[in-house]
Amino acid sequence: MQGFLEPESVALIGVTRQSGAGSYNNLEVMLRYGYKGRIYVVHPQASEICGFETYASINQVPEVPDLAVISIGRDRVLPVFQECVQKGVQNVLIISQGFADADKEGERLQKELSRIARDNKVRILGPNTMGTLNAFFGFSTAFVDIPRDPSPPPLTLVVQSGIFLAGFEFFTHRMGKAIDLGNCCDLDFVDVLNFLEADPQTEIIVLHMEGLSRGRDFLQTASRIIQKKPILVLKTGRSSEGAKAALSHSGSMVGEDGVFQQAFDKAGVIRVNNMIELLAASKAFLNYKPMQGPRIAVITVAGATGVMSADACGDYGLELAPFPQRIEDELKNHRMPWFRLHNPVDIWPIGMVSGSFSEVFKNAARQLIQEDKVDAILGIIPVFGSSMHSDLDMVSCVQDIEVYNHK
Amino acid sequence: MQGFLEPESVALIGVTRQSGAGSYNNLEVMLRYGYKGRIYVVHPQASEICGFETYASINQVPEVPDLAVISIGRDRVLPVFQECVQKGVQNVLIISQGFADADKEGERLQKELSRIARDNKVRILGPNTMGTLNAFFGFSTAFVDIPRDPSPPPLTLVVQSGIFLAGFEFFTHRMGKAIDLGNCCDLDFVDVLNFLEADPQTEIIVLHMEGLSRGRDFLQTASRIIQKKPILVLKTGRSSEGAKAALSHSGSMVGEDGVFQQAFDKAGVIRVNNMIELLAASKAFLNYKPMQGPRIAVITVAGATGVMSADACGDYGLELAPFPQRIEDELKNHRMPWFRLHNPVDIWPIGMVSGSFSEVFKNAARQLIQEDKVDAILGIIPVFGSSMHSDLDMVSCVQDIEVYNHK
Repeated sequence: MQGFLEPESVALIGVTRQSGAGSYNNLEVMLRYGYKGRIYVVHPQASEICGFETYASINQVPEVPDLAVISIGRDRVLPVFQECVQKGVQNVLIISQGFADADKEGERLQKELSRIARDNKVRILGPNTMGTLNAFFGFSTAFVDIPRDPSPPPLTLVVQSGIFLAGFEFFTHRMGKAIDLGNCCDLDFVDVLNFLEADPQTEIIVLHMEGLSRGRDFLQTASRIIQKKPILVLKTGRSSEGAKAALSHSGSMVGEDGVFQQAFDKAGVIRVNNMIELLAASKAFLNYKPMQGPRIAVITVAGATGVMSADACGDYGLELAPFPQRIEDELKNHRMPWFRLHNPVDIWPIGMVSGSFSEVFKNAARQLIQEDKVDAILGIIPVFGSSMHSDLDMVSCVQDIEVYNHK
Repeated sequence: MQGFLEPESVALIGVTRQSGAGSYNNLEVMLRYGYKGRIYVVHPQASEICGFETYASINQVPEVPDLAVISIGRDRVLPVFQECVQKGVQNVLIISQGFADADKEGERLQKELSRIARDNKVRILGPNTMGTLNAFFGFSTAFVDIPRDPSPPPLTLVVQSGIFLAGFEFFTHRMGKAIDLGNCCDLDFVDVLNFLEADPQTEIIVLHMEGLSRGRDFLQTASRIIQKKPILVLKTGRSSEGAKAALSHSGSMVGEDGVFQQAFDKAGVIRVNNMIELLAASKAFLNYKPMQGPRIAVITVAGATGVMSADACGDYGLELAPFPQRIEDELKNHRMPWFRLHNPVDIWPIGMVSGSFSEVFKNAARQLIQEDKVDAILGIIPVFGSSMHSDLDMVSCVQDIEVYNHK
């Protein structure tokens, strides 16, 4: 995998002669992303692309590059791949579509690719992939611009669609590495997990999975890795309609969803059901310490959201921690002697009188986090549009749930 | 209800002498929101507040105002309310907390308020409420600033917390009217629904409900109204923890959630499970025509999101419409003869070649919406960070699902 994520040299086969908006020129994108390695552009007709002299074939490239990236019409992929093999290239990334994702002929071509790779011990990523991205190293094979995170987080995405690299704002801005497996004709989830197990830049693994061919190996590998690194999975193609769609997207045979569920449960992989949950869970693992138990204390400025979070605790297997009486004295509002605090802790009446919501919030959080029976604090802070609430906005300006005790 | 939403004159009892940020001065907020009616400020000590001369008691106000708004310590509410009754005020809004939301004494005080209201045919909204908001008329009793929608939508919120008026961005910017029932000591969901049935400015009714006292009447009223206007409900306090929290928030007796579910189903009320669903459903009813059937066509620029939306169709009882073959010819990509379209319709390969995603998207949508077997179109458009995709961003810059055929 190293060659796919940190190549010292790369051959680009099939770069477009156009550049700028709408050209999907992966050479241009690669340079803009900050790749500092040696690039060889292979093109049979053009003599120069984006200031790079070209080579008519991989054969004429003056070294054996760590990686070849193929992005040409499907019918020409097989011979070009064979040239790469003859050249001695070990890692080949095939962006081209039209294989198991398309028709019988595509399926045949893909099988042929797999066979040649296996016979020659050459690894293929793809086909039908946007490739890889490594914000630590400054390398991206994507054909669309992706902003490079200046301080990459230890989160690695392993997906079956380039949309995760380019189209979901959170991931686009907060991923260290990404690997789009595409149709998985050779490298698959098991291979990549085995690599990530020892990767020091990967502490959280996020999977987007449409299909899986080596179920038993996946189970074994994932069970081992989650002892060290959490694995989140968004398994799509759950429904029969979804399964059909997955077949024509990544050529994946989906199988029974119940089987996947059992495997995930057994392996200790955390399954999320949709993008909203995936983003929330990824954000949580990136930013917060794991909870030591299920007991939560909720601080809110509105009783109604306290009730909603109590419901959510029920939905997600969390418990409301018992409310510590000493906090009641600490947070007392002497103008409302009848006012009782509970968990969820509604700080509105206190904050309104004290004049500083952020101080009341921080005080409550400080007190609660010291309790043995409190495993985490949930703060619910609404977005107030008005300048009258600048103090509340100081705490945080998100209509979201944040745990006070950051990593 | 009219007096609570469109009063020609209002008495404010208990306005603070402070003003500006952190003062929660409801007079100041009311003026800023654009109220043009007559305001009488009642204060026993101050002679002037915000440029308004004050009256020592409601008794001295020179007319019988359409509405009195009480915002004083709970122990003084009862006598002040009685003065309002003696004055002949028909509508009294009690912002003060500390009633059934608090303790035994609060419960007793609230019962007394109810009794006096009933005996004198005076209506109370509250206590423990932020009151009402009417963007059409320019009236708000809230003690925090809420931006006034310049072209109010026909959506009315009936809630048990002021947080809906002030703290949820979507509603704050997109509500025509809002009524916070608070503890429901007199006016309740049934009263308000009966009023909204004939209100020409209300076409969509959104309920946030913690408890309900007149279940049978609610069922009857709601069943009748949903023939004309959709009713959405977020019923909170679903769990036992949530039920406890609801009791100390709005003093609501929650009861069995299954009973509510049956009632909602029977009445045809649309129940949502959380704020995310509530916002999505409200947005949908505000912006889109109701679907005539469950069949949907999905247009996406990524196969992976097509698979996810197929799963979501399964989750929400929608069906993928059969893909019309004539569209295939219409959208053909001659450089990828092997490429087959399905529903979900992945326009990526076509858009990439044609150079204009927005044209391909619009063409696909135009073709699909003409199909008898297509009841709605779902467009999934990712957020691309890059200027290389300005054409895609033209279609829409939301990571969201939008139906093409707007109202």
